[in-house]
Amino acid sequence: MKIFVDVMGGDNAPNAVLQGAADAVKEFGQGMTIALLGPEDVIRKTAGEMNIDLAPFEIIHCPDVVTMEDDPVRVARKKPESSMIKGLTLLKNGEGDAFVSAGSTGALHVATSLIVRTMKGVKRPALATQMPAPGKNYLLLDCGANAECRADMLNAFGTMGSVYAQKVMGRENPAVALVNNGAEEHKGTPMYREAHQKLKANPSIRFVGNVEPRDVMKGDMDVVVCDGFVGNVVLKLTEGVATTLLGMLKPIFLKNILTKLAYLTIKGGMGDLKKMMDSEEVGGAPLLGASRPVIKAHGSSKARGIKNAIRQARICVENDLCGTMEKALADTMAADQ
Amino acid sequence: MKIFVDVMGGDNAPNAVLQGAADAVKEFGQGMTIALLGPEDVIRKTAGEMNIDLAPFEIIHCPDVVTMEDDPVRVARKKPESSMIKGLTLLKNGEGDAFVSAGSTGALHVATSLIVRTMKGVKRPALATQMPAPGKNYLLLDCGANAECRADMLNAFGTMGSVYAQKVMGRENPAVALVNNGAEEHKGTPMYREAHQKLKANPSIRFVGNVEPRDVMKGDMDVVVCDGFVGNVVLKLTEGVATTLLGMLKPIFLKNILTKLAYLTIKGGMGDLKKMMDSEEVGGAPLLGASRPVIKAHGSSKARGIKNAIRQARICVENDLCGTMEKALADTMAADQ
Repeated sequence: MKIFVDVMGGDNAPNAVLQGAADAVKEFGQGMTIALLGPEDVIRKTAGEMNIDLAPFEIIHCPDVVTMEDDPVRVARKKPESSMIKGLTLLKNGEGDAFVSAGSTGALHVATSLIVRTMKGVKRPALATQMPAPGKNYLLLDCGANAECRADMLNAFGTMGSVYAQKVMGRENPAVALVNNGAEEHKGTPMYREAHQKLKANPSIRFVGNVEPRDVMKGDMDVVVCDGFVGNVVLKLTEGVATTLLGMLKPIFLKNILTKLAYLTIKGGMGDLKKMMDSEEVGGAPLLGASRPVIKAHGSSKARGIKNAIRQARICVENDLCGTMEKALADTMAADQ
Repeated sequence: MKIFVDVMGGDNAPNAVLQGAADAVKEFGQGMTIALLGPEDVIRKTAGEMNIDLAPFEIIHCPDVVTMEDDPVRVARKKPESSMIKGLTLLKNGEGDAFVSAGSTGALHVATSLIVRTMKGVKRPALATQMPAPGKNYLLLDCGANAECRADMLNAFGTMGSVYAQKVMGRENPAVALVNNGAEEHKGTPMYREAHQKLKANPSIRFVGNVEPRDVMKGDMDVVVCDGFVGNVVLKLTEGVATTLLGMLKPIFLKNILTKLAYLTIKGGMGDLKKMMDSEEVGGAPLLGASRPVIKAHGSSKARGIKNAIRQARICVENDLCGTMEKALADTMAADQ
């Protein structure tokens, strides 16, 4: 198995990416080659400074770099020699099995659609994020790749998410829910009402109905489906509310010597809570519906986030995520005729 | 000034409503008559049991009751003798100045549109909620009354919210922002892009641009505008994430005697945090764009929530909320021609 890793993507590139790749080799590198894509001199120089042994890696020289300033729509044509575009092209050509990047989400999304292409019935891939919840997390899609969606897209998201939950997250018979402003079938906009009916008739999933956003963290969902505008709100608001509330605890504990001592007694428990909210634990968000596995690591990923994103890519390949998904999508579409 | 109060609305009616009304009379009753609407025998019996003196109140006998099971669209015709419909009708006829109810949001929204009517340029009123944030809260609208919106509706929400923030929340020159999945003008769906341009050109408000949901709690917004589907997600997800995280703290502190002692040292600080998240503090959500002040108190309101909703209604009347809003909306529409 060969996994392409974009060394130049993300806020902490190239250092965090190289360290994450090195840690991945150490922890679960057997039977897997990691190909590092980026300017060869940068890779060699950085690895040297960080005492990272490059022997286990393949290095694919890509002189160009995709930045956050690049127009996502033009990047494939403008920067064919960048680590992102070259990696996706090699993936498309079957010279490797998966691609991992912490670079620009917009550029990765558009370039994946253009180069790797999508499965039958999928116009553009959906970005799927494992969201924190006590007990077990849930897969949220679309998280922002497709701001406007039709009902059949949400239906496909249900199938794609369900297959991912089984194959990568290890969930049996995953519960799929639709974000909505009420539990009843007739709630929401006409598009959401239509999506509800399609999901209900979808033979590839176990649809459990609408979920109100108040209940998404209750831990009884595996997959939560919505359009990309709403998904982006769910993703970022969860982060914002958690950051604000946990941030408010800090001055409470820093108030005086007694409260500081108090913090020591609960430090372990708070660690579990922080771990739950930590996006590095999961690693990345797959672009579901792409013909081959593409994992978007969080832009702010540190080495652990990159390592875990590579682990996800490995599991996708090992469990034939894309083959299974393609079949399930065909069943979904057949039932929706 | 006369304020109509629906004694039969909400999970804790009639007791909590009567207590809230009695507390309102005690705290800020001068120059204000509260008219209690409901079955007279129920009002008299409950007040007797609770030792509430009915002398300061007007009682308007309404034999019928709107329930959560009533179809919102039909309730005005089916239950003209209910406290909700009779109250709105008297408000429309100028026999009082504002209406407060903790009853069914859907029924109140539709009946307000049909009976009280809306201001020029407003098809249906928007539900506006003061959302928690450290420092100062922000007014979110629409919170779910209008699942589907056009760009000109979001523009009107900006004006309506800005006037409410000035007249009722006491904010000078309020900052109005648009929920979106990025700070840049071109972000979001076509409808959100169009709304951004209209809000930017709106002479009645100080528009500060897009706000990402991650930043809504940062405390620098006074008014946050979005469609009712998204607003409902923001409202309920904020509640869900806060409930989940604060709920996770409980077992951490209950773990052993040391952690229980630790809790005592930070109890005061936690109280402030809980107070911030407490919807009873504000009281209710106004239906903005209705021709006269209608306040929806939270369905689970206790006496304090009802009292504070009555206070809001009083401030709306004292500061001529509706007159000011009508003029501001006319300016908004003129600029959008």
